[in-house]
Formats: sequence, C-alpha cells, structure tokens
Amino acid sequence: MNSFGRNFRLTIFGESHGPAIGVVVDGIPAGVALSIADFESDLRRRQSGAVGTTPRHEADTPEILSGVLDGHTTGAPIAILFRNENTRSGDYSHLATHPRPGHADFVAKEKFAGYNDLRGGGHFSGRLTLALVAAGVVAKKIVAPALPSAQIVELGGSGNKAEWDNIIATAQSEGDSVGGIIECRVEGMPIGVGEPFFDSLESIIAHLTFSIPGVRGVEFGDGFGSARMRGSQHNDLIINANGTTATNGAGGINGGISNGNPVVFRVAVKPTSSIAREQQTYNFDTGQVEPLRIGGRHDVCIALRAAVVVEAIAAIALAELMAERELKMEN
Amino acid sequence: MNSFGRNFRLTIFGESHGPAIGVVVDGIPAGVALSIADFESDLRRRQSGAVGTTPRHEADTPEILSGVLDGHTTGAPIAILFRNENTRSGDYSHLATHPRPGHADFVAKEKFAGYNDLRGGGHFSGRLTLALVAAGVVAKKIVAPALPSAQIVELGGSGNKAEWDNIIATAQSEGDSVGGIIECRVEGMPIGVGEPFFDSLESIIAHLTFSIPGVRGVEFGDGFGSARMRGSQHNDLIINANGTTATNGAGGINGGISNGNPVVFRVAVKPTSSIAREQQTYNFDTGQVEPLRIGGRHDVCIALRAAVVVEAIAAIALAELMAERELKMEN
Amino acid sequence: MNSFGRNFRLTIFGESHGPAIGVVVDGIPAGVALSIADFESDLRRRQSGAVGTTPRHEADTPEILSGVLDGHTTGAPIAILFRNENTRSGDYSHLATHPRPGHADFVAKEKFAGYNDLRGGGHFSGRLTLALVAAGVVAKKIVAPALPSAQIVELGGSGNKAEWDNIIATAQSEGDSVGGIIECRVEGMPIGVGEPFFDSLESIIAHLTFSIPGVRGVEFGDGFGSARMRGSQHNDLIINANGTTATNGAGGINGGISNGNPVVFRVAVKPTSSIAREQQTYNFDTGQVEPLRIGGRHDVCIALRAAVVVEAIAAIALAELMAERELKMEN
Amino acid sequence: MNSFGRNFRLTIFGESHGPAIGVVVDGIPAGVALSIADFESDLRRRQSGAVGTTPRHEADTPEILSGVLDGHTTGAPIAILFRNENTRSGDYSHLATHPRPGHADFVAKEKFAGYNDLRGGGHFSGRLTLALVAAGVVAKKIVAPALPSAQIVELGGSGNKAEWDNIIATAQSEGDSVGGIIECRVEGMPIGVGEPFFDSLESIIAHLTFSIPGVRGVEFGDGFGSARMRGSQHNDLIINANGTTATNGAGGINGGISNGNPVVFRVAVKPTSSIAREQQTYNFDTGQVEPLRIGGRHDVCIALRAAVVVEAIAAIALAELMAERELKMEN
Repeated sequence: MNSFGRNFRLTIFGESHGPAIGVVVDGIPAGVALSIADFESDLRRRQSGAVGTTPRHEADTPEILSGVLDGHTTGAPIAILFRNENTRSGDYSHLATHPRPGHADFVAKEKFAGYNDLRGGGHFSGRLTLALVAAGVVAKKIVAPALPSAQIVELGGSGNKAEWDNIIATAQSEGDSVGGIIECRVEGMPIGVGEPFFDSLESIIAHLTFSIPGVRGVEFGDGFGSARMRGSQHNDLIINANGTTATNGAGGINGGISNGNPVVFRVAVKPTSSIAREQQTYNFDTGQVEPLRIGGRHDVCIALRAAVVVEAIAAIALAELMAERELKMEN
Repeated sequence: MNSFGRNFRLTIFGESHGPAIGVVVDGIPAGVALSIADFESDLRRRQSGAVGTTPRHEADTPEILSGVLDGHTTGAPIAILFRNENTRSGDYSHLATHPRPGHADFVAKEKFAGYNDLRGGGHFSGRLTLALVAAGVVAKKIVAPALPSAQIVELGGSGNKAEWDNIIATAQSEGDSVGGIIECRVEGMPIGVGEPFFDSLESIIAHLTFSIPGVRGVEFGDGFGSARMRGSQHNDLIINANGTTATNGAGGINGGISNGNPVVFRVAVKPTSSIAREQQTYNFDTGQVEPLRIGGRHDVCIALRAAVVVEAIAAIALAELMAERELKMEN
Repeated sequence: MNSFGRNFRLTIFGESHGPAIGVVVDGIPAGVALSIADFESDLRRRQSGAVGTTPRHEADTPEILSGVLDGHTTGAPIAILFRNENTRSGDYSHLATHPRPGHADFVAKEKFAGYNDLRGGGHFSGRLTLALVAAGVVAKKIVAPALPSAQIVELGGSGNKAEWDNIIATAQSEGDSVGGIIECRVEGMPIGVGEPFFDSLESIIAHLTFSIPGVRGVEFGDGFGSARMRGSQHNDLIINANGTTATNGAGGINGGISNGNPVVFRVAVKPTSSIAREQQTYNFDTGQVEPLRIGGRHDVCIALRAAVVVEAIAAIALAELMAERELKMEN
Repeated sequence: MNSFGRNFRLTIFGESHGPAIGVVVDGIPAGVALSIADFESDLRRRQSGAVGTTPRHEADTPEILSGVLDGHTTGAPIAILFRNENTRSGDYSHLATHPRPGHADFVAKEKFAGYNDLRGGGHFSGRLTLALVAAGVVAKKIVAPALPSAQIVELGGSGNKAEWDNIIATAQSEGDSVGGIIECRVEGMPIGVGEPFFDSLESIIAHLTFSIPGVRGVEFGDGFGSARMRGSQHNDLIINANGTTATNGAGGINGGISNGNPVVFRVAVKPTSSIAREQQTYNFDTGQVEPLRIGGRHDVCIALRAAVVVEAIAAIALAELMAERELKMEN
C-alpha cells in the first residue's frame, strides 16, 4: 500500500507523467508552525541541476491543500500537491514490450496486467520521492531538535569527495552510471524511541529506506563490519549516567530503542538503471534478446539526489516512533 | 508493538524467565495441514546444543491452543505456546544498576521506568525468536513451494566453513564472541509479490529482519557492492519470456516486486553481547565505570541459531505479501 | 486518523472553506473501468439544490490526479480532488467564543488548542462527505453486482413520503430542522463476506457509518426491535441449499459474515444542528449564556443528502471485506 | 482479523471446546498495578449461574503469561489465558448438515470450507467474550477515572426490572429466549477523546460493540429518537466554561470527540438463538426443511451476561482513543 505509519501517517500518490504528485500527512499536532517557505531548502536539494543529474527540470512548487491555516497546522490532515509540468511522454511508448534492465517495467506489466502507467516509470518513478521529501519537512518539525542529517560518504566506490566530479564525468561520457553510499546521523536523540521487535527503530527506518527506489542495503552502527568483530570490540561501554557510550557500534540503538547516542545508519544506492549506452533486453514481441537504447532524461548518479530523501524518511521514522514513546511514557 | 502484518498477522509475547513464550498467527486460510510434527525440524535448528551455543536447554515443545483441528487449520487464529522450564533467575539481579554493554538493560530501564522484567533480558531476550520460528513454520505452509532457505555464509570474518569450529573455539577460550553473515535465498518465486514503496518486498523483509535481536545490516542482491558498480554491470538482462535474468544483482526484486528470479538477501549478525571476559560498565549506584563479569549461560555466536529465524521471517514476509498479490490479481 | 481500511484504503483531507477537499483510494486492482462520468450521478445526489438543502452550491467537479489512465485503473493509488469555490468565510468569525450548539466548535477548540479551522466547521464539515461519496463510486466498481442502495424511509418522524415536503417546509418556516432514518439494502450478496469479531461486517459498516457527521444510531435487520422479540420469532429459518432464509431478522449477517441474503441496515440521522432560529449558547468571552443567531447557509434536513453517503460507506465496507474474503478463499 | 487497536491493541484466540481462550493486550504503559484479583469481579459478572444463564459452568481462572511482574505491568504485551474445562463436545456433531437458525454454522461452513470447529460454535462462540472482558479489565486501569458502567435497561420488551425474572421464567418454560437493551454510561470523561471521521469515538465504540456476538444495534445519546426530533430540541446548550450542556442528546460526543459530558450509548441484544423448542432448518443431506432440536446448554437471555462485555469494549475504545488524544496534545 502507499501509506505508512500509525501515528505519523503519510499517503503518497502520483505518476511521473500524470497530472500531479502528492502526499497526505496525518497525525500532526495542531499549532506547529509550517509554511511553503519551510519546504524550499529540502526540495531544492532533491532537485536536478547539479552535475550528474537529469536535465528534466520541474519547479516542484508545493501547494498546501489542507491542514494549515495562518502559518500553523490545524490538527487536520495536511495534503501537499506538486503539479507535473515538464513531461515528455513520447519517450516511453515501447517499454511494454522492451522492458528496461533494472527497471520495474517487466514486473509492473505482469502485476498490473498491462494497465500500469508506463510513462517515465509511472508510479514507480523516483519522482515520487518528492512526496517523501515533503512529508519529511513536516516530520522534521515534529522531531526537532533530533534532526537527521544525511550526506554521501562514498560515490562510485570512492570515499574521497575530491574525486567525485571526475567519476561522474567519466561515467557520463561512457554512457554509464554510478552508485553511492549515504550516511545519515541523528544527533540530540532522546532515550527511549523505538520498541522491541516489530517497531524497533531499525525496523521502521529500514522499512522506509527500502521504500526509496534504488536502495540495495541498510546498516546501522558498525553494520556489516560488526559481523567481523569480536563482542569485546563491538560492545559499547556506557561511560556516564546519561547513557553516553565510549564507542557507537550499535548506531545509537539497543533492543530496538534509542540509547541517547547519535543514531547512525548507512544506505547503499545502486547505480542509475537508465543508462545512455546500448543494453540488451528481451523483446516480448519478437521473443529475442535485442539491443535497447533508452531515451528520456536521467541522472548519472541517483545517490546525489537521494541524501535528502534518506534524511526525510529518517525524520518520518522518528516522528512515528516518538509519538509512540510519548504514549508509553504518559501513564 | 508486538504484532506485524495486515494479511498474515503475528503477535508475540513472553519473557525469557516468565511462564511462557507464545505467538498468535492470524489470517491463515482454513484447510492447511498443520500438526505439532511440522514444528520439530525448525525448532531444533533454533535450539542450543551445538558448539558455540548456550548450555541452557529448553524442550521447546509447542502447544497449539487454537485454530487447528484434526490436523488442519480452521481459519481461526492459531495460538502456539511454549512453557519456559529451564530458568535460573538468580543470575540477573544486578542488571538494573550495572547495565550490560550491548544489551537493552539501560534503555529498558529508562523506557519502562524500571518496571521491565530484567531476568534474562525479559521481553528483549533472543528467546522470543522461538515465537518467530513457530510463526515461520506456519508461514512456510502458505508460501510453499517458494520456500526460503537460509544459512551462514561467513562466521567470524571467514567464508571458509572449515575454519568455523576453530574460530568459535578460540573465541570461547578467550571469553569472547563472534558475529556472522546469513544468506537467505528463495527459489521458485512467483512474479508480482510486493508493492511499490511502503510495501515493497525489501521493506517488509528488512522490517522483519531488524526485529531479530542482534541484526546490524540487510542487503539485497549485489547489496552494498552495487554502490561500487557501474549501471552497466549491475543491471540484470532479461533473457526469456519468464523474466529470467542473466545476472541477479537486484536480488530478484524490481520496484519492490518479485521478478521471478530467486530472492536473495544477506543479514549481518553482531557478535553475542554477553561475553565471559570482564568488561567495563557504568555503575548507576556508585556513578563510576567499573568492571562487570556477566554470569548466565550464553551463545558464543548467535548467528549459529539465527539462520532459521531469518528463514522464518522471510517466509512471514512472503506470506504477508503473497496475500496482497492474490488480492490485486483477483479482480 | 483520516484513513480507513486495510485492503480498500481511503484517506480523506480538506476543510469546508480551504482550497480543496480530496480523497486517496488505494488497493484498487488494475484494469477497472473508471472515468469522470462515473462520479456524476452520485455526486449530484449528494449536492444541494432540492427543497430543504443549503443554497451554497458547489460544482463538485472531480479531478482525478493519479491512478487512472485511458479510462482504467492502473493499480496505483487514485487521488481525487474537488476545489472549493463558493466559500463565504466572513460568516464564521465568532465561533471560537460562541460555539454553536450541536457542532464541534467547542471540542475542536479544546482539542486543537484554538488552531483548528473554524470556517464552515473546517475539517468537521459535512462537506467532507464529498470525499466519501467519491470513494464510494470507486468501491461500487469493486463490489458490483452487490451494489448497496440507500434511501430515506422516515423523515421528521413520518414514514409517509407524501408528507415530507410539508414537514420540511414547516420546519424551515419555523427556522428549525428535522432528522430522518435511512435504510440501506445490498442485494446480490455473496456468502462469506466479513469475519468473526473485530472485522465483522456489522463492525466495519457501523464504524464507517459513524464517520458520517450527524449519525446517532445504526441497526441491522430487526435491529432494536429484536431486543423485544422471542428467539423463536427472530431466528431466520434456512429454506434452501443457497442459505436463503424465510425471514431476514439478522439483516443478512450471521457471526459477522454475510449469509447470502440481502444485507439490511438503518441509520438514524439527527436534525441539522445549524438552525435559523435564535438559540442560547455559552459566550466564552463574557462567561454568560447568551442568544446566538447562526448565519451561513444550511440544510433543513441533512438526511436528504446523506442517503448517497450511507450507500458510499456501505460499498467501501464491502470492498474492504470482499478483498479479505478472497484472501481467505485462496489457499 | 482477530485483533483491534493501534494504541491499545488486543488479539483474541480460542474456541468454545478447544484447549483454551486467550487474549494478548499490547500498548500498556509500564508500572500499572495489575493482578489476578483485578479480574475477579468482571469475570464473575460474565459468568453463568444466575436465572436465565447456561448451566455450563467454567471456573474462568485467568493465567497471566507475560507482561506483568511483581503486581505491575512491565510495558511488554500481556497474555492472559483461560483453560476450557467443562466441555461436552458430543452435543454438536450434526451441525455441519443441520445448521442452527440464527447461528454462524452455515456461513462458517461456507467460508472455511468445512474446516471450522463446529463444537459449541467454535471460534464464533460467545465464550470468546471472556477474552474481551479480560482485556476490558486492563483497559479500565488505563481510562480510570473515566470508567464505563453498563447495565440492562430493557429485557424482553420491559423496562421494569421487577418483571424481568418472570419474563425469563416464562420464556424458559416455553423453550424460548428473550433479548434486551444495555445502556452504558461513562462519567468523568475528559474533553477531546476521539477524532473526526474514521476514529470518531462513536466509530470505535460501535466497531467494538458489533464485535460482540448477538448485537443488532447501537445508538448514542438521543439515538434513533433524534431522527424524530427538531434541531431546536436535539441541540445541547452549553451552560458553562467546562462545556457542560443542559441536555445530552449528543451522548457526550460532538464531531466524533468527547465534549466532557457523560458518554451514553445503548446496545440492542437479540434473543438467544439456541432455544430448546423445536425449530425448522434446512437439512443439507436430505435437501429438506426438517425439525431441529438443539441440545447443549444455553442462556435464555444473553443480554444478562453481555452488560459487562459492553462495559469492557467501552473501556477498550476509550483506552485506544485516549492514547491518541495524549499524542495530539503532546506537541
């Protein structure tokens, strides 16, 4: 389904080349200051325009349809709409029979019996992350001052930022694409956010992270590295009454619950599937594997625009679970 | 919360040293063959007894309290109970003031205002995975023949099985513990399981995986490795009308939906937190960092017993989403 | 929360005098024929214009923002938007201190700390039923041929249709309002829709019915009358292998599950709270009970426009539970 | 499904003649005083033994399996178990082909393809209300001092208590049964419990009320009577700054939200379906309508034992929505 959350609930809708993308956010307390200006910075971070991003450029101006009055939330659900304007649907007509490698074209056709919107990937498009970023802006208002901050820490296999422009330029010149790793940190975490088992902080963050198109992995704290450590190395020693630990191999979480140290997780983003160079694909008309050249306009590295999306889903996860924490603490 | 799923819904309860551990599984169609004997094999795989596992031994005999009659499910919820028998609660009395590194002792005390059951980790205990394995047995009945198969592929940093006994013995002799990586594969997957965004197959699997105590990371297909690949390397070429791909970098999933190829994911399990050697911890009585020696009986490598748990949650995730798929296909 | 349903999920948003009212409907199979024209008839039934309805007239033209392409659903969530156009917000400025009897003005102020949108009742407005009717149109496509049909059976205490115009005219001339009772029937019901206990067909219908502003009661089959009957009178005798019963005191439902006979329920709708004649209310500024005269434009009998809303929620309830039924039947 | 609630979540299981009935209650804050003794009074009210109740007598001793330690809740899910002891399963063997009028025998057979447990109605049995009452005991701890109080106000058509014993004796002597109406009041309600639309206080109460076997109608405040009133009669005049109203036609709820006045609702309970006198039913073996005489042991009036169940679900509804209220109030 296209909604998530019991306390901070978001519902997303829209297709890449349809009339609009939107999100409804529910569960927001009344009286939270919120205006169009609050969305600007995060929406701009998600936009194309930098080196390695698609030349399709959308204004991405949010229209708040409900739930906000005189600069404050009213307690009613907040609906936010983005009109699609810069669409070129002609590019996508042959995807039903020539599914693009790495895309959802094939599974969508199978699952939706050919009725799915193929244009620009339809509802599967990365353009839907616009809705996640908008919801994230609202979530950040709720979770402050525990604000997530996400950035790329590795691109095309390199952790050296100085090399990244070159890596992108090379891949682009070769009609190819690259992946990256995004790290997200949340400083100022309160103790007690999350629940044992199914509503663990890791479960909710991971669930939402894998809702972002192109994500292949998530790890917390020492992550996959912990599997190669001894317990004596990986365990975090508590050093004071606030629960501060000498190391943070657990990524700020024990038993699914925040321990007051920074929450730290990393997200692996695959290289963009749409590449300019010729690829092979199965042609369902001819029954042959044939060359395919993908038109349209695409990012060389989707990780570049995904950092703010990861930040958004982290804020959403925290907003969801902080509400639960207040609940449990209440009685 | 301690329940999960909209279609295949499980609810777990119990504490390590309380009277019992249990699970209620709802949403099971009537007429599925199910008996106590079906649980034996998976429960035995989760049990201790092998090298590197805890000497606490429980019979783990399931009692089916409802939902099954004459060897078949009735369509009513299935409640399964395991009595705890081999408990030694004396070992755990001082955890409130001397929280064990890597455990939930500290966060539980904070979150539950000191009312939590400390004995053996209480509700945070790995013993609760018994409930997951039991639910997994039921789930496997639903998802067959798409049965998940999980095994350790790396232990203590080594991918060579021949070295593992030695790695464990060494760690044990040094009063330490080791981690591991579990790989789960599902052959025979139908096309179309999972949804775009929040109910993506990756999202549901990852959500449940991080409900297993001790998991630090999850990756699908090429996983973190994909972040270092070019699009032309990572993309999977479709080679026939069934959607079979030449490679499986996507781990059998596109756009959140199974593509008919094997679903493949890997799970990083941290080294056991409870180690025999002396560790430092903060003493909340004295306000000093002091040495702690953990009593009780523990595994050297929890990954050894976690493979069947990973298999269980994979089956649960599939059961949940296959129901959704049938739903969508119906009309 | 402003969403409902696990299988057929709707999310509503909007305020009476805000920019728009809308609904997102998720869980719709791909390939269902759906176009703007499908909404016309039901939306017109909900509209004002008849004797006894408000002079505020809105075009109520739906805009489908997503989930429909070339006249068929795509399997993606369907967002439907209605712009508010004929608003006169000046009428409502004093409601914060002079709450209208029978309205949510007082509770909304308390619950939302004064940040709620007061204009026209804001999010509490009966105008939101527009979203329910739109969702109902989609639901009817799913449940056909088991189509709910609702109509007024009693108005202002009279079951004689011939008297109703006169009853309304009299109440209007006296600056007052009247209530009514709506009966909804669903012919062509399949056997097996609904679940024991929490997802009983009655539970889901009742839940949604009480989501309609102004509803005071719901009864099934013999309803409150059954409490005055003997078991030998109320029990329905099965007369053939299809489960057809000689009487239908159970309203077509046993144990929460449809038995194949028509589902029948009745809904009590209160008289419109906004009346033209002077009423007393508490003035929170002066601390006195004082006369209040309500401006704005209002219905004399909201039941007149509510029948199609009841029909809509019946269809939504069926769509939700029919999906569940298919699920259970599958294995 | 057999679970309900987002904040106060209960899951029920069991069959009338299976090993046990149980409930898991989740979302309870830590530190709430709770012991076996707390259950006694409500469980006894639900028990048989009075005039007009079944001679099947069960001890109904709850066993708390988890979530409670040293007389207080721990914050973990609370599982409560009741063993079935006094079962006589031989009585029910022919129900598959001779469905009892007014019972779920026919729909259960159809829905569950004959795999359902027929003995004593199986999972459809009124015995499952034991689980609701137990959950209600926990809920009352949360909602106090806003404690629901339910009692029969009409039995067999009479509102005069003095006549009830006679009404029951007459019906019993004639091998018949009678219905009744239960009224539930909640004094001491805080303002602000409930949400507009789908989580309205009426919606949640009505949803849970129709989960009780045998309920045919629910009404709030003036209820069905309001449909026969003028707005000037039905509207409640606020008379002081606390929101106290001169009348309570709204049953203490406006716009789905409690207004601080007593919440009042009434529940219509049908006459017991199992009656001693001969009834006609369809024999699926012979294809004929034939006489049926129901064995087993039954209540003459299930309303007698249902009052405490109504009280329980009212407490559950309040516990669910009060948590939501705290949530919204928090920021």
